[in-house]
Amino acid sequence: MIKQFFNHYSLPNTSVIPEHNYTANNSQLLPPDALWIKFNVPVGDHNAMTPAPVVTNTSGPTPVGPTGTSVERYYAYVFKGELINRYDEKADRQISEKATFDPEIFFNIILPPIIFNAGYSLKRRFFFRNLGAIMAYAFIGTTISCFIVGSIMRVLVSLMPETLKEFSFNDCLYFGAIISATDPVTVLAIFNDLHVDVTLYALVFGESILNDAIAITLAGSIDSFAKHYNLGFVAAVFRAFGNFVYIFVLSFLQGSFIGCATALLTKFTKLCDFPLLESSLFVLMSYSTFLMAEALELSGIVAVLFCGICQAHYTFNNLSDESRSRTKSIFELCNFIAENFIFTYIGVSMFTFPRHLWSFWFIIFAFLAIAAGRALNVYPLSIILNFGRQNKIPINFQHVLFFSGLRGAMAFALAIRNTITEPRRLMLTSTSLISIVTVIVCGGCTPALLQQLRVPVGVEEAEHEMLQFSGVRRSGSAQTPQDLRSPSITGGQDGPTRSAYEKAWLVRKWYNFDVRFMKPLLTHSRPSLMDTLPDCCLPLARLLTTTQQMSADEYHRRDDEDSDDDLVLQPAGGGGGAGVGGLQESNFSRTNSTDYQSTEEYSRDTGAYLTNSVIATTGNNGYNTSRGGAADSGRPA
Amino acid sequence: MIKQFFNHYSLPNTSVIPEHNYTANNSQLLPPDALWIKFNVPVGDHNAMTPAPVVTNTSGPTPVGPTGTSVERYYAYVFKGELINRYDEKADRQISEKATFDPEIFFNIILPPIIFNAGYSLKRRFFFRNLGAIMAYAFIGTTISCFIVGSIMRVLVSLMPETLKEFSFNDCLYFGAIISATDPVTVLAIFNDLHVDVTLYALVFGESILNDAIAITLAGSIDSFAKHYNLGFVAAVFRAFGNFVYIFVLSFLQGSFIGCATALLTKFTKLCDFPLLESSLFVLMSYSTFLMAEALELSGIVAVLFCGICQAHYTFNNLSDESRSRTKSIFELCNFIAENFIFTYIGVSMFTFPRHLWSFWFIIFAFLAIAAGRALNVYPLSIILNFGRQNKIPINFQHVLFFSGLRGAMAFALAIRNTITEPRRLMLTSTSLISIVTVIVCGGCTPALLQQLRVPVGVEEAEHEMLQFSGVRRSGSAQTPQDLRSPSITGGQDGPTRSAYEKAWLVRKWYNFDVRFMKPLLTHSRPSLMDTLPDCCLPLARLLTTTQQMSADEYHRRDDEDSDDDLVLQPAGGGGGAGVGGLQESNFSRTNSTDYQSTEEYSRDTGAYLTNSVIATTGNNGYNTSRGGAADSGRPA
Repeated sequence: MIKQFFNHYSLPNTSVIPEHNYTANNSQLLPPDALWIKFNVPVGDHNAMTPAPVVTNTSGPTPVGPTGTSVERYYAYVFKGELINRYDEKADRQISEKATFDPEIFFNIILPPIIFNAGYSLKRRFFFRNLGAIMAYAFIGTTISCFIVGSIMRVLVSLMPETLKEFSFNDCLYFGAIISATDPVTVLAIFNDLHVDVTLYALVFGESILNDAIAITLAGSIDSFAKHYNLGFVAAVFRAFGNFVYIFVLSFLQGSFIGCATALLTKFTKLCDFPLLESSLFVLMSYSTFLMAEALELSGIVAVLFCGICQAHYTFNNLSDESRSRTKSIFELCNFIAENFIFTYIGVSMFTFPRHLWSFWFIIFAFLAIAAGRALNVYPLSIILNFGRQNKIPINFQHVLFFSGLRGAMAFALAIRNTITEPRRLMLTSTSLISIVTVIVCGGCTPALLQQLRVPVGVEEAEHEMLQFSGVRRSGSAQTPQDLRSPSITGGQDGPTRSAYEKAWLVRKWYNFDVRFMKPLLTHSRPSLMDTLPDCCLPLARLLTTTQQMSADEYHRRDDEDSDDDLVLQPAGGGGGAGVGGLQESNFSRTNSTDYQSTEEYSRDTGAYLTNSVIATTGNNGYNTSRGGAADSGRPA
Repeated sequence: MIKQFFNHYSLPNTSVIPEHNYTANNSQLLPPDALWIKFNVPVGDHNAMTPAPVVTNTSGPTPVGPTGTSVERYYAYVFKGELINRYDEKADRQISEKATFDPEIFFNIILPPIIFNAGYSLKRRFFFRNLGAIMAYAFIGTTISCFIVGSIMRVLVSLMPETLKEFSFNDCLYFGAIISATDPVTVLAIFNDLHVDVTLYALVFGESILNDAIAITLAGSIDSFAKHYNLGFVAAVFRAFGNFVYIFVLSFLQGSFIGCATALLTKFTKLCDFPLLESSLFVLMSYSTFLMAEALELSGIVAVLFCGICQAHYTFNNLSDESRSRTKSIFELCNFIAENFIFTYIGVSMFTFPRHLWSFWFIIFAFLAIAAGRALNVYPLSIILNFGRQNKIPINFQHVLFFSGLRGAMAFALAIRNTITEPRRLMLTSTSLISIVTVIVCGGCTPALLQQLRVPVGVEEAEHEMLQFSGVRRSGSAQTPQDLRSPSITGGQDGPTRSAYEKAWLVRKWYNFDVRFMKPLLTHSRPSLMDTLPDCCLPLARLLTTTQQMSADEYHRRDDEDSDDDLVLQPAGGGGGAGVGGLQESNFSRTNSTDYQSTEEYSRDTGAYLTNSVIATTGNNGYNTSRGGAADSGRPA
């Protein structure tokens, strides 16, 4: 109702000369972020006109003359964006001002829920199983892609020195970095519908969310490289690399730390009695991760991604049922709206963005470059990875991986963040067009491609599990917490029955650490720290074990299982239900503790493998017999 | 990662004289909303320094001199807020700039979910039953309170002409308007915990949400009064009154229209097969109501409130189960976070807001004034209302109503929206303090007060129903759609058995209209339009009736009932379950259509009243026998 003064009037132009010189970074002159304007407002005379606005820029002592009966008022103005250059068209400029969408909103409001939700809804089971391959594609592959694209664009720039004269090699690399963030949102939607092979799904999804984080860090490093270029090439490279590692590792740690802190908070307090408060804190803690990382000059995107993974892995177990479904549904909705907004905005901005720069050859070369970059990322890395993997990545999977290199939200957000210089504007135009074309072409052709390449579709996760473990028959009568304390005694039994996944040494170590220390510390799950810590730490362990955890009853056990379902390797009976049948179920239900059961990597180290002998064991409370159904019905959507 | 240029440097001051004179509205000089700054950026020379920023204000032709090798760039700056006046303290000014919280965020981001959720989660049944009293308290009472407070403050101003010299009568009235928005959030939380009498709950809650909407419209009208004061007093009063009616009615219509449009959209499409899309559209349509009203210069708060009520009343019936729980939980969470934010911010701003103006006498008088305003609102109106009400508002309820006049979010948001002039700053300081004191004192004393006044607590809704209708025994063997078409034939049977609620003529008329036209048109409920419209409109009715509605099966009937549960009067059996027992249940289950049953105002017009004769009838599908349990278990939280 209270309208602010919005009459239009003009002022004569007055040159204002800055006292200090601009020292523009990155060879561009950027406008100041904020202006403070001083107005001399007459006092007492309410009908007085013509206050004399006095401009004073951002700060500093402001000597003012005698003001008479006027009071000085300082008003802050913040930078909103650049206006279209046609300064003689008043209406046009006004529209353009209204249509200028603050790119910081992308980074601070729209991207965080998308990235957080990616971490929060990650199919962790298959993600962790393929962690090595995913990290190789994401870290090494994205870097390869960035440099390939950068080099190809450099070639183009040297071919056309006239039209692209403002393009430095650094700009080329920057373009390589922002365009290397893949976003296979349409491909994954189709995968989901068709129930495509879960390993392929995990590879595509895992790579895409990690390489977003890497692309954004890489782009920052390339900026830092430009800043330190005067130190010499090698020093600058090392600086940039150091910058990359520093930002990525610290963001990772910061995000994980907040995630774990939330888990501790929900474990050691009675928050779950107040579900609304619990959900609110969960949402606010998660978002504060992003803000905190940005305030610390780290990467908020990386932090919020790993925070999401931690929240799902630990905190989710401690939440009340109401909070579980509430947080799931909220982040799903936020993600859905934000994603739709970005893709809508990409399309709209193709027509409304006033400063598009079109260069036919640049766009053609960019398409070639991203295809080449993607190919040199996927195929060589797959060959190398297949040396180390027992279950190879088949060639048709590699084709699908190549094909799923769509560009989307993150590339566009990075491109639109800075459109001050001409090269950046050219990048934005190209990135928008590449996003639109790849989403339509690659998204539209995915079903045909899957059919052409005979990629298995309609695979249920449980079926997949059964296929994977059809050679493995185990029984565990010797599974007690005692075994947990000496996991390496029977480890290392290499043989034909050993699953391909066991090769992932790092993953196995992480599982052990996770099951023994992290989950008992951060969640209500069994075994508790009192079981897993050495005897000397018993007092500490007792302190960190809740009564709820010690008296873990039927109810809580099922709760844990629900969430573990996504988290770690789990018997087929848990996910498959009736379809898989009793044979598989009894194979896997060999301990009386759900947690031991679900971490099969761990069990495999400790347990004896019995090939082709099916021994049905029941848990000490008869719980195992009803597991399949219970997990199915109780699992959060 | 990409940091914008943020070095601090100073510019010499230059006076800029506006070409046109400021025509400040409301006797204050307000700063312009936006500035466009022209920079002359040198081209080609990337290390060039000293661009000459040229200030050009908001618009107009800008004659520029020869620019040489430089390119003109226009950057838009938007108004952020006023800085503290201590211009010689640089650091202080920077902190103050960062702590300046844009008050528009309150109105555009934080208040809409609170108000929408108030409408969406309204206990409609009791709200509509007490509609007359609620509207009297809200419309008449808020206006009384506004003028009483304004007058008392005017007296104070005339007593202290020195210190409050800038205070006009208009400022006094404006203060009266913003401080008349009650927000009994703590009182209602306590009511909820203690299960206080539902009529009392409905009165307090209903009044508080409506008077927010009225206070905001009133504040706008008082502003408009000031603007038109030069037309003469009477003309200005009529203008202000016309403005009030115009804004309120149009906002109400706009909000209801969008709500009904969403209902139609969800009814006539297959959206419910895509719950995520459905929820997103629901959220976006609801929020767009607010934005659209603001864009049309109406009141977004009023529009979003009535949109919320329509969404709950109609659209909610058409949503899929997933969307129902998702939207409920999202708006609950948004409301919770937003409310907590506001109360936190009220507290924080008491210490950080740099321009508090303290006036001991003003604050003391303000407390007296709001107490007097509240008393002259509640007690006289209650006496008048009790003439017309069969179930009187007892004196202890009136005391509680008086006591629940806490000030909160809306008063603070209105006060902080404009702090340009001294009177407004004084208002903000007083409003913050009043909010804090009333919330702590009134909130803290509510349980003691309830005990002291012997207000019934621990009342379940169902019990309440039973008490209300214990004298009424009915049976309806003659209930067919035929009766619906002649509702006035047997109407008007006044007698001792007639419930007190029947007096509300307007409400009864609305019920009839709602059941016959609105619900059949906008939801999947029975009876459909084909039953309720006259025969001549049959083709149209057929067009507007979905197949789902025509073949309304068990499932959909229960769905409707779930939502109607909150909406309209319903038999005790529906809400009470086993506790109420079979007697009550059979009394009320006399028709075979849930909708007829639940609109007892309507039925009472048409049905025959049989005193003390209990006839148990079952619906044609045996559904009535299981109603209590089904409604209890299926009702959304």
